Amino acid sequence: MSDTAFPIVDPPDAAARDAARQRQAQLTKPAGSLGRLEELGVWIASCQGVCPPRPFARPRIVVFAGDHGVAAHGVSAFPSEVTGQMVANFAAGGAAVNVLAAAAGATVRVVDMAVDGETAADDLKVRRSSGSIDREDALTDEETATAVIAGRAIADDEIDSGADLLVAGDMGIGNTTPAAVLIAALTGAEPVAVVGRGTGIDDQGWMRKAVAVRDALRRARKVGTDPLGLLRTAGGADLAAMAGFLAQAAVRRTPVILDGVVVGAAALVAEEMAPGAARWWVAGHRSVEPAHHLALERLELEPVLDLGMRLGEGSGAVVALPIVSAAVRVLAEMATFGEAGVSTG
Amino acid sequence: MSDTAFPIVDPPDAAARDAARQRQAQLTKPAGSLGRLEELGVWIASCQGVCPPRPFARPRIVVFAGDHGVAAHGVSAFPSEVTGQMVANFAAGGAAVNVLAAAAGATVRVVDMAVDGETAADDLKVRRSSGSIDREDALTDEETATAVIAGRAIADDEIDSGADLLVAGDMGIGNTTPAAVLIAALTGAEPVAVVGRGTGIDDQGWMRKAVAVRDALRRARKVGTDPLGLLRTAGGADLAAMAGFLAQAAVRRTPVILDGVVVGAAALVAEEMAPGAARWWVAGHRSVEPAHHLALERLELEPVLDLGMRLGEGSGAVVALPIVSAAVRVLAEMATFGEAGVSTG
Repeated sequence: MSDTAFPIVDPPDAAARDAARQRQAQLTKPAGSLGRLEELGVWIASCQGVCPPRPFARPRIVVFAGDHGVAAHGVSAFPSEVTGQMVANFAAGGAAVNVLAAAAGATVRVVDMAVDGETAADDLKVRRSSGSIDREDALTDEETATAVIAGRAIADDEIDSGADLLVAGDMGIGNTTPAAVLIAALTGAEPVAVVGRGTGIDDQGWMRKAVAVRDALRRARKVGTDPLGLLRTAGGADLAAMAGFLAQAAVRRTPVILDGVVVGAAALVAEEMAPGAARWWVAGHRSVEPAHHLALERLELEPVLDLGMRLGEGSGAVVALPIVSAAVRVLAEMATFGEAGVSTG
Repeated sequence: MSDTAFPIVDPPDAAARDAARQRQAQLTKPAGSLGRLEELGVWIASCQGVCPPRPFARPRIVVFAGDHGVAAHGVSAFPSEVTGQMVANFAAGGAAVNVLAAAAGATVRVVDMAVDGETAADDLKVRRSSGSIDREDALTDEETATAVIAGRAIADDEIDSGADLLVAGDMGIGNTTPAAVLIAALTGAEPVAVVGRGTGIDDQGWMRKAVAVRDALRRARKVGTDPLGLLRTAGGADLAAMAGFLAQAAVRRTPVILDGVVVGAAALVAEEMAPGAARWWVAGHRSVEPAHHLALERLELEPVLDLGMRLGEGSGAVVALPIVSAAVRVLAEMATFGEAGVSTG
């Protein structure tokens, strides 16, 4: 098995899931009255293979940074130089994901996969910026493999260091354009159905972005649903690494909270690479980007939150983290009817 | 002004709100990209009258416990004795609200307004159980006033002790029946539109509950929208205290996260008692109880979460607390474009 080949992924543990469901029914609350919190607790128990589940010891966010050649063609409200500036902002702790992670008790790692300039982030740079996908491949075959393998190694590294809950985040001006193309390619959606306003483009920018997506999609359709082919044609080193990371997290039986449209695109690709991986993921939130709900629908994931967010960086996933943590604690720490001497009706 | 009379409530501070909006626009993120989180941060800044807002020092949950005579007539899946048993469970720290509060860094106080038996909770008992509202008033005029004044005093006490974010929770077998009646009375809804399954009644129970709501509503309609009259006729001591608490929190310029249908009913009454109070409240979640969305619609509040919860105890509000806290921290702690040297596009 080569390093870009992933196995079919086993589902989370059924015995722990069943034990968790039984425990939910014994806790001092009407059956089902905590709604989604109950499901989340059961899911984490099944991921951990133990009931009651353990509180998260080391929730970890990995932000994959990379530039995109297509950003030079007017598809974003911000210039490419912002990618590197934001990587510096992450290092200084001033970005949204830093503050949200601190609030949620999580830590952040930033990896530079393809930023078009020097950064202080973990240097895993595959190239400077990815190709402009409306007219050329994002990556070569070799670069694609290198990036997927790097993402896979990051997941291994984090899990080996004790991470028991992972979040992937994105940073890259222009990255919602390849994300939209990947989602359209894997769901069969038309360009107009996947093109959103990203960081906030105007109507002219939206039209330029729609044209870029159309052109890239025309090229991407030729590779069908081949995940490596799609990442090469219409992805980028950041997206490829993210896909490898998400697939490997599932292989390593580690739950992931997904973020918005960019992570959603990488997740769709990862599910193609490692079928069954999606059972190890929960959708943290629903982004306002239109392609995001297509990705979640295809992955059969229902978002925990719907707060009108569209920032990326993993921010929507990190906002959902305290809810997943609370679900774990409810299942682990609440008294049962028997323990509390409460009548069961 | 008598102790059950509340003033018209001033809105949160406009200058702090405007400063907070300006600050949001300078933080290192596309304008509006944190969606609801941005609004929540601005709202807390305006409640505190300062920008950036301060992290919550003492978020506090007050659970109002009381029994309801109507529970003897088959409207609940649980017997009334569970109210007192659950109050003991709160004291032991084993209930959902205890675990969720601990996870969110909040503390819980339980007050016994009308439990039908002795409890270890703060004893503010107005009577043992409230009247069976399908056939008699819940309270006398004097009991109603006593309960409202008690709730008002609890808010004062908590705020004087440093609470800077309040949550009201409920515990009382049968309490969704008076809640449904109060909401129907104040929104003009029909009984069938407000009757839900509470803790989980079957179809027969639902029909008994609908009949009880119909009969109570027939009596409640006679008092119009008079809040004290409604609490007397179709409320209960727990609901009356909660209404006084919610109104006084607003008078004291202290933000509140609302919970589900029971708190929503008390909030509707509180807004009648202290017009403008609702601007000091945010809806923590959308309950599955059908009357809840009618109450929120009338209060013009959009829930932060929609997790299919229906437990009460303040649980849905407490699950939303980390999101409100995160919104405050984002506004207070993120770097501005200028500070971080990030281009603004």
